[in-house]
Parts: sequence; C-alpha cells; structure tokens
Amino acid sequence: MPVNLTPPVAAQLLPVAGVSLGIAEANIKRPDRKDLLVMQLCDGARVAGVFTKNRFCAAPVIVAREHLAQPDGIRALLVNTGNANAGTGEQGMSDARTTCAALAGLLGCKTNQILPFSTGVIMEPLPVAKIAAGLPAAVTNMRADNWLAAAQAIMTTDIVAKAISKQVKIDGATVTITGIAKGSGMIHPNMATMLGYIATDAAIAQPLLQAMVSEAANRSFNCITVDGDTSTNDALMLIATGKAALPEVKAADSQAAKMLQAAISEVAIYLAQAIVRDGEGATKFITVCVEGGNSEDECKQIGYAIARSPLVKTAFFASDPNLGRILAAIGYAGVADLDVAALRLYLDDVLVAENGGRAASYREEDGQRVMQQSDITIRVVLGRGAANATLWTCDFSYDYVKINASYRS
Amino acid sequence: MPVNLTPPVAAQLLPVAGVSLGIAEANIKRPDRKDLLVMQLCDGARVAGVFTKNRFCAAPVIVAREHLAQPDGIRALLVNTGNANAGTGEQGMSDARTTCAALAGLLGCKTNQILPFSTGVIMEPLPVAKIAAGLPAAVTNMRADNWLAAAQAIMTTDIVAKAISKQVKIDGATVTITGIAKGSGMIHPNMATMLGYIATDAAIAQPLLQAMVSEAANRSFNCITVDGDTSTNDALMLIATGKAALPEVKAADSQAAKMLQAAISEVAIYLAQAIVRDGEGATKFITVCVEGGNSEDECKQIGYAIARSPLVKTAFFASDPNLGRILAAIGYAGVADLDVAALRLYLDDVLVAENGGRAASYREEDGQRVMQQSDITIRVVLGRGAANATLWTCDFSYDYVKINASYRS
Repeated sequence: MPVNLTPPVAAQLLPVAGVSLGIAEANIKRPDRKDLLVMQLCDGARVAGVFTKNRFCAAPVIVAREHLAQPDGIRALLVNTGNANAGTGEQGMSDARTTCAALAGLLGCKTNQILPFSTGVIMEPLPVAKIAAGLPAAVTNMRADNWLAAAQAIMTTDIVAKAISKQVKIDGATVTITGIAKGSGMIHPNMATMLGYIATDAAIAQPLLQAMVSEAANRSFNCITVDGDTSTNDALMLIATGKAALPEVKAADSQAAKMLQAAISEVAIYLAQAIVRDGEGATKFITVCVEGGNSEDECKQIGYAIARSPLVKTAFFASDPNLGRILAAIGYAGVADLDVAALRLYLDDVLVAENGGRAASYREEDGQRVMQQSDITIRVVLGRGAANATLWTCDFSYDYVKINASYRS
Repeated sequence: MPVNLTPPVAAQLLPVAGVSLGIAEANIKRPDRKDLLVMQLCDGARVAGVFTKNRFCAAPVIVAREHLAQPDGIRALLVNTGNANAGTGEQGMSDARTTCAALAGLLGCKTNQILPFSTGVIMEPLPVAKIAAGLPAAVTNMRADNWLAAAQAIMTTDIVAKAISKQVKIDGATVTITGIAKGSGMIHPNMATMLGYIATDAAIAQPLLQAMVSEAANRSFNCITVDGDTSTNDALMLIATGKAALPEVKAADSQAAKMLQAAISEVAIYLAQAIVRDGEGATKFITVCVEGGNSEDECKQIGYAIARSPLVKTAFFASDPNLGRILAAIGYAGVADLDVAALRLYLDDVLVAENGGRAASYREEDGQRVMQQSDITIRVVLGRGAANATLWTCDFSYDYVKINASYRS
C-alpha cells in the first residue's frame, strides 16, 4: 500500500485556463478502464519537456521530440497507458505518427502539433486501431476540470493517482499550477522515469520554460529511485498557456521567474515523492540525505548506492536495523578516496556509526524504534566538503517481486 | 534451492600436500555449527590474494593485506563465519589482530604470519573470546582431507557447500588444485565478493602467483552478480605449497604457467558459478553474453545492466518472456553512442529482437519455452566491434526478500 500518500480529491485540483482534458476507455490492455488521455491546449500555449536518456527510448519519445522542434506550436498531448510502444522499431515510429494524425484530424490541426506519450508493456505492437477508435469519445468529453480523471487515465501499476494544484500570487496576479504524474516501477533517473505533466496559466518565454522544466526535473524526478531501472518512455512536460493576468515571464533572474520556478519545482517534488510512496510493493518511504561532500555528484553517487541496494531495501522492509548494510553500500559507491573513518551515519536523529564503526552511543533499541516508522531519513555526513544531495526511495518487499513477476498477466 | 548444483562429495576433494585444515564449532552466531576454519600451510608455501574494493572494507581485510606484505611467509589462514568484523573501526582492527595472535601462539609462529578472514553480520563486535576458545579444537583436528568440512565451516546463507578439485599433468608431474568458496548474497564485483581459497601443490613464484590470482578472479568472481551489493569482506586467496614434483614455475609465458593458469581459472569459474547457482533465493541460473562490442568494458557494462535489473530478474523468476525489459536495461546501461537498431537479442537459440524491435520471426511460445528452463543464456550481439564479455547471475524471487528481510534473526 502507498506510504502516507493521500489520494487526490477532484475538488482540490484546479483547472488551468487554456487546458482541456478528455478521457476515454480504449480497451488497450484490458476493458473497463480509462486508458486514453487527450490534453488540448489553447492557441499560443507553450510546451517544453525533458525525456528519458535510455538509448532504447520509445517511439513516442522520438516523435514527441521531433514535434516539439517544429515552430507551429503544440495543440494537444495524447497519452495512452497499457502499451509503451517501446522496442518496436520502425513500425512503432509509424504507429506513433498514425495516432497523432488521427487526433490531428479530429482537432483540425497538423499531425506534428500533437505530442504522443505511451506507457505500459515494452516490445509489443501499439494497438493503433483501438486508440484511434477511442479518440472521438475523449475529444467529445473534453473538460477543464478533468484533472483527476486524467491522472487516473495514465496509471499502470500505480495504486493511487498522483495530482496536485498550487496557486501563487505574483505581482498581484494569481497563477495556477496543476500537475499529474504516473509511475511506480522502472523508476530511476535519468531522467524523469515516469510520465509527468505540469500546466500553468502563466506566460513563460520558450527558453525559460525549457530551463524551468529541466531544473524542476533535476530537483524531483531525477532524485528518486524505486528499482534502479530507467524506463524507455519517461517524460516530464511543462505547459504554459499564458491565460493568467501576468505579463510574459522572460528573464530567469526576475522575481516572477524565481517564484514560478519555486512553485513548479514544489509541484514536481510532490509528484516525484508520490511516485516513490506508491512504489511497487513499498511499505516505507526513505529519504537519503548525503551531506558534506566534495561535489553534488559524489553525494548523489553515495545516495544512490544506498537507495538502490537490495540488501538495504529488504532490511527496511523487515524493520531490521541491520545498518551495516548501509556502510557497505557507502563503501562500494565508487568514491575512491572516501575516508570511512571521517563519516557519520544517522537514522533520523539516531547516530549509528562514526570513526569507521558503530557509534559508542548507539543502542539497538534506538535503531529499532526508527526502523518501525513508515517515513525514515538516512543521513550520511561525509565531512569533506560543502555539497549535499537528497534522494527518495522506498523499501523492497515481497510485493515488489509479486507485482513484477506477474506484470503481464 | 540451488540451481543445478550438486553438493560436493568428500571423496572427490583431493588433499593438497602442504595444506592441513582444522574445523571447530565456536558458537560465534549460533550453536552446533562449524564456524571456524584454520588452514595451516607448510614451510615455504606462498600465498597471494585479491580483496574487495569496498571503501568500508573489513578489519580482517586490512590486516590480511598488511600480513601478506611482510617477508616471513604465511603459516596459516584463519576464517570465521557468523560475524564480518566490518564497520567495527579501531576495535575491529585490534580484534582481528588478537585472533591472529591467539592462533600464532598455538602454532608457534608470529602473529603477522596469520591471515584473518571474517564473514557474516556487519557492524557487530567480533566475539574474540569465542574464537580464541574454539581455536585449540580446530588446531587439534587438523587434517589434509578436511576440505569438505572446511567448505561447510565458511558458509553463511549458502545452502550448498562449494568445493572442487582438479588435477593436471604438467611436464610429467601431477599437480593438484583444490578450491573452496562461500557466498550467496551481497554478491557483486569488484572484486571477489565472497571468500574463496584455492590451493595447489605446484611451486609458483610470488609475482606470478599474484598475477594468476588476479587473472582467475577477473574471469570468475568478477563476472558474477546476485544482487549488485559488493561486500566489505571479499577475498580470493591462492596458495602454492611447492610440494608437487614440478620445478618452480616463474615465467608467465611458459607452457607450465599457462596450463596452471587455465586449471586455476577453471576451479575459480566453477566456484563463482556455484555461488550464483546457490544465490539467495535463486531458481534460475542465467548466463549473459555480450558480444561484438567496442571494448570488454562496454560489454560488461551492458551485461551488468541486464544482470542487475530487478525487473529482468523478476521476469525470469516468473518464467515470463517479458523481454522488453532486457532492451530497456541495454538502453540505460550508459553506452552513449549505442545504436539500438544494430543489435540483436537472443534467448538461447531464439532471436528475440533486431532492428530496434521484436524480431519478425519471434514467437511468444519460443520465448516461453526457453524461460521455463533452469539454465538460460541471454545473448546480446552489439555488432560494433570484436570484444566480448560473459557474466553469470540468477533470478530474483520471493525467497531473496525473505532471506534478506530475516538475515539477522
């Protein structure tokens, strides 16, 4: 069950002027579930995104990148769940374009003004006919207050839909930001390792929009791992419709840009953490803080060694303070000149290790107390510099194996 | 249960002249089990080894490295299971030296002529008194034909003891090689990620001995992974007693050296594969061959991405040919200029993917047939160079989680 993750309520999700959402049941993988989402954008809306770095990136990722590069603007995003259209070769590329063309026909725009996204099983042909047949229903039911249904329509093994809204007042104008995401397994940077869509009614210049989505991804989706597997399809898209009563934001160092960036990153961090809280089989939410490193990179390197270790993750599942496994992970993280005698390891407020071994003050019952919690912070203080990194992960349970041993059935 | 791994039989394990083995029950972690091993070496025996690269390497690893560097020769190896003496700081160093001193007193040699090794739980104090109390019994019961009991005495979560003997005729003289190893979880290079001891009665010059143990480790223990966790305590030791009727082998390019290296590597590969076959919770033994790469490094990089992926490993556990997960792992392995359209993926003899997607000839029932086997080969043909790498791993089952969620209890 998701760890301390409250399902979103429709009434808390605010429409973003200029964005309409239509949902359909297209029977892509199984019947009677929402599996198709169309996000239509107003004229003049801008879109920027970051995509998976997996070399086997999916056909829709390649096509979405192409379409983003054309100058006519994006009119709609098309998302299906149930099939990833990844590892599908030339046929997959053609299938992705065919679905874009089908939606473009319904909306009266060009094929390359549609961005396609797919999530689900890899290396199976995209059921193009089912998607095309489902599109009219999605387009007919387009509504501005459809964000919860949209979040539900992109789920795969997710248990809880992920969605959040935020409003921020900038220069007297109210700006709305609403985001949705999906993801539960195959979660590891880079980059976004899931699908995420964040829309705001602010007007943001295109280069700044791209910088903002990269920054938001780096602070959120690039800081999580469930299983260390980087998906073929991940994408985080940032949409700015320009409908709010705020002049276009252009300069990265303006107060408006900073406030917007902070709010957008906050939405992205909420969604990224929600993905970990709903990680496949998760029973614990674990924050890994690595402090006092020579660089952010080495902090992340150590953090990920801990966050990815099956031995650490199974110990947390068992609430067993077998914390030497964390030391082992720090040791093999690959930081060649690390002085293990200089670092300190904390579990929440409990000092576990220092001087290369167990802290004299450490008592098993203190470790046990923290391990019983559902939200736990592992803190490693390296004592060799001023850089920090914070990552989020979950534990490793029987249910992770169960979910992934039966994913296709 | 171990995958196609026959337990060794005492009669098949050949004594190595110059090596005596004593075993005791020292109650280190629990009563009524062999948990202490002393390997006494004849005068003039030479020892070389490779050790874990984990920065949090255990106290016995540090002490063994120190003792190996002194010129007086090694007279005995002391191995305990049940406690790793890792993450134990200065106390751990002193504890390791104390156990060496205790054994040196019994054998009448210097403390630094003993090599200590420990395996078991991390970050708990070594029960020095129990080990010291157990040593006299081990020394009293020293025998040359004790290899099976020795293999059993170093087990932790291993189900089956790992041991093998081999004889090879070189220049008319019969040379014997016998090796034992332990390891089941926390298995990932570098380096040896377990304890392994290989002894031969050949006489081998010290620099060549070191080269031979490194080469054997690179072809065996550095090619396996169970869970991607690199242990703090791993060591592979090669002992040459010089009791065989063969002149000292000195030149690496001599025929004798090549024959010896081949036989030693063969023993090491058997032991390394045995560790994977007995991997925690393993139900499948998986060989990953990556061929046609630009370098062995990039082949290993791709091989390990596959071999470490929890999604790939759970699919094998389920016998589910969800083989797109292998493509995803290849894609995120980090080979930046990889052309995914140029590679081919095989499962045993079945061509699964080519041209960036599922092969036209692939049929689900063929994949299903191979997935049902207990020994499976994943073959990736990159088509960009002449380098190859072969790795061995196992699947990921409920029992892995079970074993590691309850390891200390």
